[in-house]
Amino acid sequence: MIKAGIIGATGYAGGELVRLLLNHKEAEIAWYGSRSYVDQRYSSVYQNMFQIVDAKCLDDNMEQLAKEVDVIFTATPQGLCASLINEGILSQAKVIDLSADFRIKDRKTYEQWYNLEHKAPQFIEEAVYGLCEINREDIKKARLIANPGCYPTCSTLSIYPLLKEGIIDGNTVIIDAKSGTSGAGRSAKVANLYCEVNENIKAYGVATHRHTPEIEEQLGYAAGYPIHINFTPHLVPMNRGILVTAYASLKKEVTYEEVKAIYDAYYGKEQFVRVLDKDVCPETKWVEGSNYVDVNFKLDPRTNRVIMMGAMDNLVKGAAGQAVQNMNLMFGFAENEGLQGVPMFP
Amino acid sequence: MIKAGIIGATGYAGGELVRLLLNHKEAEIAWYGSRSYVDQRYSSVYQNMFQIVDAKCLDDNMEQLAKEVDVIFTATPQGLCASLINEGILSQAKVIDLSADFRIKDRKTYEQWYNLEHKAPQFIEEAVYGLCEINREDIKKARLIANPGCYPTCSTLSIYPLLKEGIIDGNTVIIDAKSGTSGAGRSAKVANLYCEVNENIKAYGVATHRHTPEIEEQLGYAAGYPIHINFTPHLVPMNRGILVTAYASLKKEVTYEEVKAIYDAYYGKEQFVRVLDKDVCPETKWVEGSNYVDVNFKLDPRTNRVIMMGAMDNLVKGAAGQAVQNMNLMFGFAENEGLQGVPMFP
Amino acid sequence: MIKAGIIGATGYAGGELVRLLLNHKEAEIAWYGSRSYVDQRYSSVYQNMFQIVDAKCLDDNMEQLAKEVDVIFTATPQGLCASLINEGILSQAKVIDLSADFRIKDRKTYEQWYNLEHKAPQFIEEAVYGLCEINREDIKKARLIANPGCYPTCSTLSIYPLLKEGIIDGNTVIIDAKSGTSGAGRSAKVANLYCEVNENIKAYGVATHRHTPEIEEQLGYAAGYPIHINFTPHLVPMNRGILVTAYASLKKEVTYEEVKAIYDAYYGKEQFVRVLDKDVCPETKWVEGSNYVDVNFKLDPRTNRVIMMGAMDNLVKGAAGQAVQNMNLMFGFAENEGLQGVPMFP
Amino acid sequence: MIKAGIIGATGYAGGELVRLLLNHKEAEIAWYGSRSYVDQRYSSVYQNMFQIVDAKCLDDNMEQLAKEVDVIFTATPQGLCASLINEGILSQAKVIDLSADFRIKDRKTYEQWYNLEHKAPQFIEEAVYGLCEINREDIKKARLIANPGCYPTCSTLSIYPLLKEGIIDGNTVIIDAKSGTSGAGRSAKVANLYCEVNENIKAYGVATHRHTPEIEEQLGYAAGYPIHINFTPHLVPMNRGILVTAYASLKKEVTYEEVKAIYDAYYGKEQFVRVLDKDVCPETKWVEGSNYVDVNFKLDPRTNRVIMMGAMDNLVKGAAGQAVQNMNLMFGFAENEGLQGVPMFP
Repeated sequence: MIKAGIIGATGYAGGELVRLLLNHKEAEIAWYGSRSYVDQRYSSVYQNMFQIVDAKCLDDNMEQLAKEVDVIFTATPQGLCASLINEGILSQAKVIDLSADFRIKDRKTYEQWYNLEHKAPQFIEEAVYGLCEINREDIKKARLIANPGCYPTCSTLSIYPLLKEGIIDGNTVIIDAKSGTSGAGRSAKVANLYCEVNENIKAYGVATHRHTPEIEEQLGYAAGYPIHINFTPHLVPMNRGILVTAYASLKKEVTYEEVKAIYDAYYGKEQFVRVLDKDVCPETKWVEGSNYVDVNFKLDPRTNRVIMMGAMDNLVKGAAGQAVQNMNLMFGFAENEGLQGVPMFP
Repeated sequence: MIKAGIIGATGYAGGELVRLLLNHKEAEIAWYGSRSYVDQRYSSVYQNMFQIVDAKCLDDNMEQLAKEVDVIFTATPQGLCASLINEGILSQAKVIDLSADFRIKDRKTYEQWYNLEHKAPQFIEEAVYGLCEINREDIKKARLIANPGCYPTCSTLSIYPLLKEGIIDGNTVIIDAKSGTSGAGRSAKVANLYCEVNENIKAYGVATHRHTPEIEEQLGYAAGYPIHINFTPHLVPMNRGILVTAYASLKKEVTYEEVKAIYDAYYGKEQFVRVLDKDVCPETKWVEGSNYVDVNFKLDPRTNRVIMMGAMDNLVKGAAGQAVQNMNLMFGFAENEGLQGVPMFP
Repeated sequence: MIKAGIIGATGYAGGELVRLLLNHKEAEIAWYGSRSYVDQRYSSVYQNMFQIVDAKCLDDNMEQLAKEVDVIFTATPQGLCASLINEGILSQAKVIDLSADFRIKDRKTYEQWYNLEHKAPQFIEEAVYGLCEINREDIKKARLIANPGCYPTCSTLSIYPLLKEGIIDGNTVIIDAKSGTSGAGRSAKVANLYCEVNENIKAYGVATHRHTPEIEEQLGYAAGYPIHINFTPHLVPMNRGILVTAYASLKKEVTYEEVKAIYDAYYGKEQFVRVLDKDVCPETKWVEGSNYVDVNFKLDPRTNRVIMMGAMDNLVKGAAGQAVQNMNLMFGFAENEGLQGVPMFP
Repeated sequence: MIKAGIIGATGYAGGELVRLLLNHKEAEIAWYGSRSYVDQRYSSVYQNMFQIVDAKCLDDNMEQLAKEVDVIFTATPQGLCASLINEGILSQAKVIDLSADFRIKDRKTYEQWYNLEHKAPQFIEEAVYGLCEINREDIKKARLIANPGCYPTCSTLSIYPLLKEGIIDGNTVIIDAKSGTSGAGRSAKVANLYCEVNENIKAYGVATHRHTPEIEEQLGYAAGYPIHINFTPHLVPMNRGILVTAYASLKKEVTYEEVKAIYDAYYGKEQFVRVLDKDVCPETKWVEGSNYVDVNFKLDPRTNRVIMMGAMDNLVKGAAGQAVQNMNLMFGFAENEGLQGVPMFP
């Protein structure tokens, strides 16, 4: 049984980490960090944990935390993990950072898109991008994990096989993504009020969203050449779920069976990626509360393009679930430990 | 490991039974019964089960089913279980009926409110009303369980202690209940279409809802005298959850502490009933996906009444979860086996 | 053509006033007051007004405003109108206050429930409670209108006829009310975030909500004796709408036809109160965007109670629409001017 | 005052036509046609019309109807209008068909995508495609209007100016569209139940949706050459609203100001198309209930593409509102008569 500490335990991703770790047989939570709620009972913030979690919230003293736990999760805004981390911490505890601080290998790209000076550039190289299905072996050996963004996880897994196999042209990729509102976090803003989000849909961050360079970097690795994409996120009136609809031009003529065989080759043995049957479109509801990503594709010979689709729960595979999956890999647990929950419907 | 069969596996309650039993360590599903989808793959109906459940749907041959399983769940409309059940079946398998067929001890009351002739009156007496917190010992010995209705479960648990202790006058009880739309089932009706339910709230079945006599019977046992109540259900634009707000006149002067002590005495050791802290109102979201019922109360000295509140997930404690809890009691499993999931938020 | 000024034009009720007044043939808006958005274009706050309203937001200088307009609407939190109003203002412009400042005739009751010292008690007596269907003649002559609260409007109109006619016992009245989230206003609070409200229902302010004494005062006028009620509001995951379900004991035996005749006598000639057909329950969706209140009732001989129901749009008849209706009465316009919009469905 | 008849008055588009025409000063509804509800009171189907509409539903006898009214709206599934229409009808009444029957000039394309034999090919040539902003002069003279589809209206208006001006390459156009659920109609299907749509988003009809050839035809007229596009609709958990996010490659280098000037040139004088300010993304909520289309664009020099966005209410500008706008043009009324309602928010 390992001990886990969470910095940022009262955000939505932090709360989801708590939910998942409470069902984990090999880990227990020893530190509920929340700067905003220090000394308050965790279950007074998340009443669903009433009589389940008795602990009070602690601060974000990462140095102290490193002495007490085996693994630290930072579910905090960009910049915080980089400002706290150091070699002493990493020598005592593994760190899984759910923020963007260590996702992008090119420091300048990070600083430009996030408009922020990187406080710990010395760890960028070491950090492993925690997209488990793709970097599994490196994750097992890592001290520091950059847990992928929600949009990049769903986008990359949907597109990766066809790009890697040279079926599509990377620079024709257009990603139109739709997210539930929990992705916007739990801070009190007028734009996230019920009445503003409900009965509404909009695009945001058009051509400027910070997940763009993260996706481009990962797709670039798959393609073997630099890629520029269009990425447009949308806010959808639902709590959870991300749907990605991606478009790309085919580099050669392919049949349904050939493309299906590629997806199956990449994901057939994966526990958390399901390649759906022909003509079944992924729906976010079918994966709610679980660590699954459902993917599928449709060829359109009229335009010589392929439409690639993916659906997942943004708080699970898009954040806390993938963080637990990374922890499982790092500590040699069964990869699906704590993640066996069947998706909830309706 | 016991074998379970489900008749009505493709309704919402049936689907929830599948979700819960898949995480159960002592039971496995051997029969997915669904008259409407015979021979179709279960996961083609509930795509969330894709690659999790490979079975096809079977019919509702209860006699055959009884030979193959240890426990049969009937998650079907009223009348079906009563029309299929017989002594041969009960001698081979335990039966947990999620419909109303065996909930009401007075046959005439059943036939009048349900406008239906009872086809198996000989089992009414034997059937145990499966409200686990109240009838636990009888449930352990039962062959046939009448799994309580969703509204009656939440209403009875909210009101029971104060009625049993003679704090309130049973004939002043007014129950104003609110339910998510999954309670209306999965049949295709205009009134349940998204656009009709969304952005809308209404009462229905005012003074005529069939759960009224069921609640009255259970409250009557608590009070020790016959009770007539007002019960008004409302349809709320959400998938899951029932909230009960109940009103009753106090028979004597009581303090907050005294009433709190009563609730604690009844529920303090219960795993699935949480008596909330002072002034915290139950919210359906705090119990979503779990078997919990959250209860609380507020005294109003201005009117000499008490307001009793309860919240639960109608598909879990209000249907499939309680059915599993009953199965656990009947087979001597840990009462919370398969039901340890932490409520999901948001 | 009269000129209208709005203080608090960027709250939800203020925005609704703008929407309604823009379609009003006899009034034009001359002042968009919003302390939070001074000097910003109104349509940058409410983008639905883009190219429709060109004005910028002004402050809440009520003295200046009174010189420029014929009628002032204050759609602001309690206390503000009372702190600004004076005889000079009232001698120049009529004032319709959408806050609670002048609704309650007993100053101590106001100060106790609102925990606020009343800054203009000298106008309490003069102010007319603007429930148009009941106080129509007084409204026509008023300088200062206390525009009723949303819950009190729906509750009072649903219950008034039976109380006035002595059919029900006022002290048995229990009001269980449900409101859409716009009633909570547009301020940025965690509790009103999309993810906290969506898929959730809860009671709030149980036995302590500030609309209680307002309802009790109005019902007391109807009954002719002091009344204490239970009033429990609930937050529903929808933008607009209030549903009231009220219970009371019958003082005598009555038939459906007798009660229907009473409702028809009170509301048969009213343009904005619709008494529905037998067994049709009011639904908030059927009145959305309009100034209608739909009411109906159900007798329950089993308990000797009547269930009274009402549905309306909380931002229209519950706030801005009733304010416009009051303005129409005060200035001698057609009572339905600007309020002819048919409810929007779905 | 002209008389209007509606065939299909009880569908969602039909209901919206009724709502809009009731506020129209120059037209009155003389025929509420609804095969499913013949002889039932219209307001028993749409309770929002209670005490507003007293008429009963009539059948779909178009010949009889033509004798009694000046204009006929057919708000029915594809095939019905074509099967009923004839020269006699057109010589007596103008017809505005809200279905797809006369939208596509190439009969074979229609029959192939709709899998339906066209029953009145002799009127295809004469029918005018009722996209008012583009075909205004032809509409004024027409007897038969093919009222555009919801997706084609929003898509075409968003893309048209840049295609017409040769700024973008038509064959690179990709349209990712999102629609509220009223677009799926009012028929009782499991897939449209509240619990299936709520908290869910999915693509549907990928590469096969019937609005594809309609959009291609209209964009082809703008471009002056044949165009093939990708069009992917998505179902969003909201009642109303369509959002279009369209992508295309730029044929030349352009600045924001140049592109803005083009949109302004096309739409600056239009009453119902609003070109939003820089960096303001269209949101469906900002146009709800109104006939507006809000459009905007974003240049992405990194990929040499432009993202074009449009939002509208699918039942108004996407169906009934545009139908009324067409009627206004055909009869010489003010183009915005009956359509002046300000969008409702929230």
